Amino acid sequence: MIERYSRPDMRRIWSDQTRYETWLEVELAVCRAMEAREMVPAGTADRVRIKVVIEPARILEIESRVRHDVIAFLSHIEEQAGEPARWLHLGMTSSDVLDTSFALQLRQAGGILLGRIDELCTALERRARELADVAMVGRSHGMHAEPTSVGLVFAGYFAEMKRNRRRLERALSNIARGKIAGAVGVYGNITPEIEAEALGALGLVPETVATQIVPRDRHAELFNALALLGASIERIAVQVRHWQRSEVAEAREPFGEGQKGSSAMPHKRNPILTENLCGLARLLRSYAGAALENVALWHERDISHSSVERVIAPDATMLTDFMLHRMVRVVDGLVVEREALARNLELSGGLVFSEAVLLSLVRAGLGRQEAYGHVQRCAMRAHAGEGQFKELLAEDNAIASTIGRDGVERCFDLGHHLRYVETIFQRVFEEEKNP
Amino acid sequence: MIERYSRPDMRRIWSDQTRYETWLEVELAVCRAMEAREMVPAGTADRVRIKVVIEPARILEIESRVRHDVIAFLSHIEEQAGEPARWLHLGMTSSDVLDTSFALQLRQAGGILLGRIDELCTALERRARELADVAMVGRSHGMHAEPTSVGLVFAGYFAEMKRNRRRLERALSNIARGKIAGAVGVYGNITPEIEAEALGALGLVPETVATQIVPRDRHAELFNALALLGASIERIAVQVRHWQRSEVAEAREPFGEGQKGSSAMPHKRNPILTENLCGLARLLRSYAGAALENVALWHERDISHSSVERVIAPDATMLTDFMLHRMVRVVDGLVVEREALARNLELSGGLVFSEAVLLSLVRAGLGRQEAYGHVQRCAMRAHAGEGQFKELLAEDNAIASTIGRDGVERCFDLGHHLRYVETIFQRVFEEEKNP
Amino acid sequence: MIERYSRPDMRRIWSDQTRYETWLEVELAVCRAMEAREMVPAGTADRVRIKVVIEPARILEIESRVRHDVIAFLSHIEEQAGEPARWLHLGMTSSDVLDTSFALQLRQAGGILLGRIDELCTALERRARELADVAMVGRSHGMHAEPTSVGLVFAGYFAEMKRNRRRLERALSNIARGKIAGAVGVYGNITPEIEAEALGALGLVPETVATQIVPRDRHAELFNALALLGASIERIAVQVRHWQRSEVAEAREPFGEGQKGSSAMPHKRNPILTENLCGLARLLRSYAGAALENVALWHERDISHSSVERVIAPDATMLTDFMLHRMVRVVDGLVVEREALARNLELSGGLVFSEAVLLSLVRAGLGRQEAYGHVQRCAMRAHAGEGQFKELLAEDNAIASTIGRDGVERCFDLGHHLRYVETIFQRVFEEEKNP
Amino acid sequence: MIERYSRPDMRRIWSDQTRYETWLEVELAVCRAMEAREMVPAGTADRVRIKVVIEPARILEIESRVRHDVIAFLSHIEEQAGEPARWLHLGMTSSDVLDTSFALQLRQAGGILLGRIDELCTALERRARELADVAMVGRSHGMHAEPTSVGLVFAGYFAEMKRNRRRLERALSNIARGKIAGAVGVYGNITPEIEAEALGALGLVPETVATQIVPRDRHAELFNALALLGASIERIAVQVRHWQRSEVAEAREPFGEGQKGSSAMPHKRNPILTENLCGLARLLRSYAGAALENVALWHERDISHSSVERVIAPDATMLTDFMLHRMVRVVDGLVVEREALARNLELSGGLVFSEAVLLSLVRAGLGRQEAYGHVQRCAMRAHAGEGQFKELLAEDNAIASTIGRDGVERCFDLGHHLRYVETIFQRVFEEEKNP
Repeated sequence: MIERYSRPDMRRIWSDQTRYETWLEVELAVCRAMEAREMVPAGTADRVRIKVVIEPARILEIESRVRHDVIAFLSHIEEQAGEPARWLHLGMTSSDVLDTSFALQLRQAGGILLGRIDELCTALERRARELADVAMVGRSHGMHAEPTSVGLVFAGYFAEMKRNRRRLERALSNIARGKIAGAVGVYGNITPEIEAEALGALGLVPETVATQIVPRDRHAELFNALALLGASIERIAVQVRHWQRSEVAEAREPFGEGQKGSSAMPHKRNPILTENLCGLARLLRSYAGAALENVALWHERDISHSSVERVIAPDATMLTDFMLHRMVRVVDGLVVEREALARNLELSGGLVFSEAVLLSLVRAGLGRQEAYGHVQRCAMRAHAGEGQFKELLAEDNAIASTIGRDGVERCFDLGHHLRYVETIFQRVFEEEKNP
Repeated sequence: MIERYSRPDMRRIWSDQTRYETWLEVELAVCRAMEAREMVPAGTADRVRIKVVIEPARILEIESRVRHDVIAFLSHIEEQAGEPARWLHLGMTSSDVLDTSFALQLRQAGGILLGRIDELCTALERRARELADVAMVGRSHGMHAEPTSVGLVFAGYFAEMKRNRRRLERALSNIARGKIAGAVGVYGNITPEIEAEALGALGLVPETVATQIVPRDRHAELFNALALLGASIERIAVQVRHWQRSEVAEAREPFGEGQKGSSAMPHKRNPILTENLCGLARLLRSYAGAALENVALWHERDISHSSVERVIAPDATMLTDFMLHRMVRVVDGLVVEREALARNLELSGGLVFSEAVLLSLVRAGLGRQEAYGHVQRCAMRAHAGEGQFKELLAEDNAIASTIGRDGVERCFDLGHHLRYVETIFQRVFEEEKNP
Repeated sequence: MIERYSRPDMRRIWSDQTRYETWLEVELAVCRAMEAREMVPAGTADRVRIKVVIEPARILEIESRVRHDVIAFLSHIEEQAGEPARWLHLGMTSSDVLDTSFALQLRQAGGILLGRIDELCTALERRARELADVAMVGRSHGMHAEPTSVGLVFAGYFAEMKRNRRRLERALSNIARGKIAGAVGVYGNITPEIEAEALGALGLVPETVATQIVPRDRHAELFNALALLGASIERIAVQVRHWQRSEVAEAREPFGEGQKGSSAMPHKRNPILTENLCGLARLLRSYAGAALENVALWHERDISHSSVERVIAPDATMLTDFMLHRMVRVVDGLVVEREALARNLELSGGLVFSEAVLLSLVRAGLGRQEAYGHVQRCAMRAHAGEGQFKELLAEDNAIASTIGRDGVERCFDLGHHLRYVETIFQRVFEEEKNP
Repeated sequence: MIERYSRPDMRRIWSDQTRYETWLEVELAVCRAMEAREMVPAGTADRVRIKVVIEPARILEIESRVRHDVIAFLSHIEEQAGEPARWLHLGMTSSDVLDTSFALQLRQAGGILLGRIDELCTALERRARELADVAMVGRSHGMHAEPTSVGLVFAGYFAEMKRNRRRLERALSNIARGKIAGAVGVYGNITPEIEAEALGALGLVPETVATQIVPRDRHAELFNALALLGASIERIAVQVRHWQRSEVAEAREPFGEGQKGSSAMPHKRNPILTENLCGLARLLRSYAGAALENVALWHERDISHSSVERVIAPDATMLTDFMLHRMVRVVDGLVVEREALARNLELSGGLVFSEAVLLSLVRAGLGRQEAYGHVQRCAMRAHAGEGQFKELLAEDNAIASTIGRDGVERCFDLGHHLRYVETIFQRVFEEEKNP
């Protein structure tokens, strides 16, 4: 992933240095398990560890000749550690190292992402509680519908992010599998006991049934979870972009000191952070598609998944990390314009209360379709500029004769509309904390 | 979905008739919850239920005029049930009916799919146990690697299908949410209590924070789970297609009495069932992509997800149902050719035991890279037709002087290779039954 | 595809009846080419043709036994036509019939789609010319930028649709390939001359190098073209949805007599047509993904593409047809609100002319970054409600001393901004008519 | 894109250095067009050019403050060039620079790719001609079908690559559009003449109807073309992988001196180059999906496409470059095993000629279905090991009495099967050279 869209911690996990260090860690864990069984001289792992300094450039140099990454790595170890190195990789196949290491790297990456989701949830909950009482016109189809609460919007994102957290946790748990089972997974020249001990030391569980590799449905689940997380970030981003529109102006992204919006137009302040996030969500979706194609490998494995994962594992985790980090900043710094919120809520002249009128008419005895017709007629007249909606209702014969001017008046009650916001808040923050 | 790729039970769930019946069920559940609170005259729901016969054609006729599906449905109810119908849909918005009904339909569809996965797991376990002792050459990169067991292949698929089952269960549990919370989800003209009671009667849980609708990350998770299930089916299908290849011929699909393989070539028996399944897996992948684009709707909802779901909800569930059903038949009826398995295992003249030789040399004191060189040299000579691999090893000075002819001989031991198959079996069938 | 999203003409092309009729047409074309070479008795094709009535149900019945669609079809022909039928399919393989027929069906479907694009271009050009002089605030990032013309928006869509038309034409031309070359494409039991004559009679060109089938990159190009066409429709649809937003209200979809916007809120008039189109565009994208996976078949062919195409060929063409038809209606009936356009253009108090001021300052001698700073300062003050933008500029020392109040005044000129609209119009309608 | 999958020439095009150099080139082209019209002092562009040394690090430093890439770039120019710099960017918006530069970079990248396709076509044609006469068993469904020619396989790939070349050329031609039309594309503060002259000098054509940007359907077409090209590479790769399978062994990838196939199994020689290419094709597909989502931007533009393009433009072009380069090496170095080809052709004992027998029987007067039954019966007996196919046919009463032993014998003629290979070769190499 390009520098622009990655952050240092996550970048480090996917560096050559870290990858080779992790490989060594896996080799040594197996070696130690063998030492414990006296299959390998005691102290071998420590003797190797002490002599080896991983130099990625040197490994790549060897690889350019042998055209095999793990063999190049082992040669590099052997040229530094000498004799004890021959006890490494005994009965193992490359994928024992690679897939086990991959699990360790993904777990580390996942840990960073879970932390970021928590930061985002914290920010969302804070804004939700802060803005719980701030009314806003709810919109369906981009059109004014009925009043809702700004804080509730954030509460909804909080709940969705918690769902994404659970999906990611499960995916990470499913990917926390290692495999030290040899060329085709039957422990031809190694044993399940060694595997269990080595993986245990690394905090991993042995793959239930490995082939040469850990089955790729586990990885596809993870990339699916990231794509879905990205889509949820996109959902928030779309909301912010809409809020910031010139005509709406209910909220806007933080705009830095010294920031410039446009090279041509000095007046511009654009929602560029969230537009950027919408684009990045498309990338996460696309990576998930590639991961799904990685599942159906040939026989006990083919290596076509490898090139895909070399690209999308760093790219998808770095992007998700970047996106979450950026979204925390947007949520934390979002400037909410209460005046604009109030102004827009008034914009329709009370049309947002039309359902309440409809229901009063039905409760007072009208058939639903008949009542609907009366209210729609007044609404269309208001739309056409023939008067204020509330007045038109009150003056409408059918309506006035059914519920009276008072009845109409009682329908235009914002407080009534938002009376359950607190109830929903209790539900979301309790439910999501104790799911 | 076309008839060819759908089965009657699943088809029925997505019929107009079932959809409208489910809508009525939801409306009546809400009505009854209101009756219990004396907000609606007692007996209303029953009076409506008794008078209404759902006629999809009539509803579509009304819809062509009002251009709104739920309004058309309500009009149809009203024209049959008369007065009591005006108590329906009180304080509800269309999506209260639609999303709640959608959850009910998806749950039903999911139930069928879980049952099918169970059938497939039963078939896979049966074949796994039956073929546990049958040796086969394991293949990585399409090339002979080391021996494995045919039964183990099925055991691996069993474990993967169990993972898919758990993913599907969780997705179904996440989608078992209804929503009776009005136009923008704040219970503007209805109450959380009514929602809880109505949904409880339907076996659903209220959405944590609804907007006008249930958030679409829940649905995307489901379509992701189906895409991943499809990819796992594809994995099995690719294996069968490889097994059946003319040169491999280790197994083949059941071939019906009277079946013809080719209009031109009377000798053909093709793996058409599994080829077909590989194609269908592509479709499931594609639907998941569309579902992910459905998450980021505008504000409290836009309706762009609806057209997607009208197509992919039936299509994806019907295809998955068809695929699982077909795969059960393939697994159950797969003809395994033991002679071909044995013949192919011998094909390389023992090259599949090369790692065992390598390890013996290392254990006897050679460095890993040196030992590798000796064995590779003999292997390349065997490839080049210069002799039997085992003989070439025994006659190789470096090797013979290290482990002797006997040492070479001991490496060519199939039983040793497969000694842990039973251990793995215990792991998979125990672990997966008590995950 | 479900009835709701398909239209009768396109539906007919993909019916079983049409498919089998097309197969017969192909078989008879080959037969006639053989008759001309006296390889088959003269008059055979006519004798078969006269005796056969295609009954899809009967063919499917046979297929359920032989499990091969073309063999079932040939049996059906043979059971009606008797002896002369044995001269059909000579030296042909099923794919000779299937792929050639598929090309014929796709060409027919493509013809309908090209016609629909033409209808849409006609509507777009009409609206473009009608609205050329109507000013609108141009928006980037959803924020007011500088003035543009409503008509120009339609002119842009016109140009994009013409590009889509050319892509579709090319894809259709690339797919207009037949193949009568036998089991593996080498004319083992048939000749290139017969192929050329038969295909010529059907208006198709022989595949350059066939395997058992026509290579699938041709088909993937077509589905890509449809996905891209869908994305362009989505672009228009997104614009309409934004225009119709309550706060913008510059244009809205046609709203039918008797139409109802919401079951709960009688005041709603929602952009449901274009929301629907946005969803359908996602489906077209997803089908293209599946088509791309169909290219890399095994050896001289595997049949995994077939199940995909049975679904997406009808689905993608029917959806595109439906989408174009619906978009024609939207464009034709779009209600443009000139007052709202004018009101929104004024909304920023002239900020949309900030670039003109910036440029005047630069032309009068200021450095770009310095000038930018002056204008941005005034813009931010206007934003903050400290006064009218034009006034603030005129009163700003740095600005006034550079270009004077008159200089500021001259920048606020809508006519100047739109002076090249006519030039662009000439370019688009000329260029696109004579590309 | 990671180093491993990118090549230096392509990498350079997407470096920060090249990007900023290209921006400067565009700014100066516009400046010169203004000089020619005396809107800017003569010699300005040259004066700027001579004073500026692009330093990406400095630009990024400024950008971190102003949060706008083009403004940072312009500031960098201004801080070096001083006064004359204020004449740059007059009447332009950032996207005038960005999109025009993007077109220049894509054209350069496209030029490299076209050259690579030509290399691949050269290699394919060479192998096609070299192997035209080498017979191979053709395979459908992975099963032996009828004989074909190895050279013909390459000829088919040649034809497909030529189609991909044409698609790429068209996409590049469609993307060779620049845009110097200001904030919303109406030349508010600039003129079409300046645009035409500046773009002409850069070898680009003005966008027909720009908004703030060049419409993104043009770019999506390009990424679609790359995805399709990738799928065609994948098709070749899958063939090589199948050829190399242990049981087939008809061809294999070049295997380097010193190369090692497996860390565990010294005998392994795996088709890792083509497996790698299959994975990379999945990535190209995924990028195309993201590009399609970039088309439907808001109003006169939103910037969500930008983050996607920053990633996929370099990634997709670098990967395609790498893939083509690698595939050239595979095709050039592919080791074809003529003995294995001959051996496999014999494997079925002549079943590959079954269609010829079927046709002889039909020509001799049998009905098609009856003849089919006779031949299938003998084929199934041969399958079951009851004898040689040819013998079983000759001894079959129904067959012998119809065409005699001689008639059977005549059907087993390889030369007859391949008699048209030369004809196809003429067609492909002529047609594709003069399409």
